[in-house]
Parts: sequence; C-alpha cells; structure tokens
Amino acid sequence: MKKTLAIIGLGLIGGSLAIALKGFEDYEIVGVDVSQPTLRYAAEHGVGDRVTERAEEVLPQADVVALALHPQGILDFLAANRDRFKPGALVWDVCGVKTAILEGAQGLPDTVDFIGCHPMAGTEFSGVEHAFGEMFQNSHFLMVPRTGSKPEHMALLERLAAYIGCKDVCRTTPEAHDALIAYTSQVMHIIAVAVCDDPDLFSCRGFEGSSFRGCTRVAALDVGLWTQLFSLNRPALLTVLDRLLDNLQSYRDALASGDRQALADKLARSAARKRQMELPGPDLLG
Amino acid sequence: MKKTLAIIGLGLIGGSLAIALKGFEDYEIVGVDVSQPTLRYAAEHGVGDRVTERAEEVLPQADVVALALHPQGILDFLAANRDRFKPGALVWDVCGVKTAILEGAQGLPDTVDFIGCHPMAGTEFSGVEHAFGEMFQNSHFLMVPRTGSKPEHMALLERLAAYIGCKDVCRTTPEAHDALIAYTSQVMHIIAVAVCDDPDLFSCRGFEGSSFRGCTRVAALDVGLWTQLFSLNRPALLTVLDRLLDNLQSYRDALASGDRQALADKLARSAARKRQMELPGPDLLG
Repeated sequence: MKKTLAIIGLGLIGGSLAIALKGFEDYEIVGVDVSQPTLRYAAEHGVGDRVTERAEEVLPQADVVALALHPQGILDFLAANRDRFKPGALVWDVCGVKTAILEGAQGLPDTVDFIGCHPMAGTEFSGVEHAFGEMFQNSHFLMVPRTGSKPEHMALLERLAAYIGCKDVCRTTPEAHDALIAYTSQVMHIIAVAVCDDPDLFSCRGFEGSSFRGCTRVAALDVGLWTQLFSLNRPALLTVLDRLLDNLQSYRDALASGDRQALADKLARSAARKRQMELPGPDLLG
Repeated sequence: MKKTLAIIGLGLIGGSLAIALKGFEDYEIVGVDVSQPTLRYAAEHGVGDRVTERAEEVLPQADVVALALHPQGILDFLAANRDRFKPGALVWDVCGVKTAILEGAQGLPDTVDFIGCHPMAGTEFSGVEHAFGEMFQNSHFLMVPRTGSKPEHMALLERLAAYIGCKDVCRTTPEAHDALIAYTSQVMHIIAVAVCDDPDLFSCRGFEGSSFRGCTRVAALDVGLWTQLFSLNRPALLTVLDRLLDNLQSYRDALASGDRQALADKLARSAARKRQMELPGPDLLG
C-alpha cells in the first residue's frame, strides 16, 4: 500500500510541489485546500494524485505533511491540528522565515517530527493556476532540523529535494536562516518596491533595460504574504536594510564628491566582490 | 558600389553591432579598432565584413559612422577626427549618456549630421569575445536628434534599429534621456554594487534565489566605463539616488513602526504600480 504525502495549501508553491512530487518513491501525493475553485483546478490539471478539502481525514493517515500556507496560516494550522498528525509523521513547511515557524512547532506532540524547510524558488505570481513542476529546478533547498529530528527524515527530505530538481540542500539554524534571507531575499523585495515608488516610474516606459526589469520583477508581490514575512523577521531585516542604506549613501557621497578616482576604486572593489561570487545570472541577454 | 558603415570600437557593443548589421541594405560593415588582438578576433569570427586599425582611411569614405567607444573615447575621437568625416555623413554613438556627448558633437563641421543614440542592451561582460548578434533583440533604441538632423538619417537609423532587432525607437532630448537613464539604468547599477558591499555577501552562498541574482547581476561592471557614465551624469544621478534613499527609508520606517497595516498599505501601493507597468521580466522562473 502506498504511503501518503499530504500538501496543505495548493497555492503557487504547494501546487508546484504537488506537481513536481508526483511519482516520488511510493508516495501518493494528496493536495489539501479550503478553496473549491483551487481544488477543482488542481483536480482538472493533475496537481497531485488526488485532492481534498478535508485535512482532518488526511492528517491521521499522512506519513509526510508539507505545509505550504502563508506564515500565519502555518502557525494557525499547527495549533488547530496538533493532535491530528499521525504518530511518527514528518511535518515540514516551505515558509521563508524559520524562527517564528519553529517556535510555533514547539506546541506539537513529541511524536511528530517537525523540520523547517525553505525551497528558494518562486515567481512574482500566486495561485495554483501559476504552479508548474519545474519551479524548483536548480534552486537551493534550506533545511532547519530541530534537536531530535530523525536522520531518516532528513535523508527523506534530501531525496525529495533532489527529486523536485533542487541543486543542493543546506542545513542551517533558524537564526542564521533568517539573517541571511533578510539579505538575499527580503531586502531584494524592499528594493524592488522602493524603486517602483519613484515618481518617474510611468514616464520611463521605453527607457528600461534588463537591469531595471531584473531589479523590479519581484515588486509585484503577494502583499499579505510579504507583510507577514517582513514583520516576522523585523529585527534581522532592519539590520540588513540599515547596512544597505549605509552602502548606498557611501556611493552617493563618492559620486557627490566629484573624485572620479575614489568612485572608480569603490566600483572596482564591489565589482571584484561580485565576480568572486560567481553566481549564475538569471539572464545574460541585454 | 556598396556604401560604407564604419563602427569605431569593437568592444561588446560595437562588436555586437558589427555582427548584427551584416547584410543591412547595401552597406559594407567596416570594424575599426586600435587593438591588434581585437582586430584578429573580429576578422577570424566574422565580426563585420572587414576590419582595420586605420580610422583615418575609413572615415573619408564612410557614409555612416557608429561610435562605440567609452564616453571619453567618443569625445576624444570626435575632437581628433572632426575634419576627417565625409561631408554629408551620418555619425551616431551608442553611449549611455547623451548631454555630454552632444556637447562634444557641437565641435563638428556643419556638413556632419550627428545624432545621439542609445541602444538599451548589454551584458555584464566586455570585449569583442562576448559580442553576439542577438544582443539588441527586443531592446529599446533611444534616439536624440539635433536641430537640423536630417529626416532621411533618422529614418535610416529607424530601419537600422529594426534590422538589429530593437522593438522600438524612442526619440527624446538629451536632458530627458539622461534623467530617465539615471533612474532606469544607472541607479540599478549603484544598487547592485551597494548590495555586493554587504559583509554577508560571501556567507550567503546557498541562500540566494532569483531576486538576488537578478538584482546583483550587473554589479560585475566595467569600472572605467561606469565611472565615466556616472560622473558625466552626476546631477541627474544624485537626484534619483536621493529619491531612492528616501523611498527605502520610508519602507524602513514603516517596518520599524510595527504597524502591519501601514506596511501592507505601502506594499499594496508599490505592487500595484509595478503591475500597472506590465514590464516583461527577464526571467519568470524561481
């Protein structure tokens, strides 16, 4: 008999997971959502092996449960369903902050192995109709185990991450995760929205190139989700934002001074740091 | 007999132009550069129809001259060769600032029709070995005519822009060009280098997603080129940088206040502005 892998929440990420995980080992992929249009779309488009609105019927049978809700939705779901999980189950989430989620998971019974996860993938769209199975290709899968997390569950998540196409799995702590994500993801979103607040936004049509499109792409964000992510990670995000403001001000001062050599020296240093990173760009064309 | 279209400077942009323009109407594409390795590479890889190091021999025959040097190189070239251009020739440049270049072009004889241009394409690489003919596909071609610029030359540039794949040609003034480019291009580069100055840059390996790659891609910039572009457009760039600093500070304050509704309202406003722009992203995958 097949084992059950339930995905709670069939939005952009949960829906993509439900597509990408089909055929994974001997698991039946069961999608759970409260929205009838979402369930209908998922059923009609093969998002998961089957779908249901009844979490309370799936949870007692589920060997693995992936929580793909907004952060507050995850906390609420854990609180409301703490006694419904199958003893010995692996429960994990896909949320972009980890400290707050792992605090919420402390309320679970000892029989449930909760491991915080964060597949670093997504688009600027939301909803199951934008889900696609290739979403996780070449992305990083971050894993935040707890004291007592079972090695076989960590190994299972590593196989699962490889199956959906992630290029690596990084294990980290909730604090390190949230500090680094404030920098690599959250501040990028703050930059994108701040750039779009410029009064010249609409007059610049016809003058934008790939650097502008690349920087502002994520500004069309899911407001509810990102309000939660930013708020739940406020101290780390404020720290990184202040560092960015300082670094931008430093470039402003170098430019305003009129000292071309000082500006060139600064640019050379930053460009060398970027080259040393050797990150693949998402787009090499102009 | 074929007409002559000379491209001065076979770097990333000039080399890509020389490839993309082959076969354009009845023009022979002649690439001009002072570097022997560049000329050898260009000749061996079919960059243009032929190449030469002798600008002084090509200019008196050239019906069209494209200047694809760094900004100061263009100003120096115009000063050194003002009397070598063929009477009636169209001379244009590809530089990312226009006020300074058009001031330099005022020293040309009345017989030369100089039109400022800016094909908005490029990559984070430099040099002829990174040139490719598809560079200009779907990019904007900005044109800054002068009083007295001939309609037939503007029409020629419009056909040329279409031939290399540009999606449109926008005519503008030097001042409007430089103000908008400060926003859409120059500040994006300042953001990218400032983000790379963060002390967490190297510890974030494994934690970066597409928003980080998209925002920082252009940080690996050509230091000499961008020092000139920023410096030649200092007032406009400072104005836009100050607006960005204000908009970032405003997000910082909203976050620090702890007022989730105020933060959500700000995000909703910015995201709606971005959606209203409907710019195609360079990358829809996570």
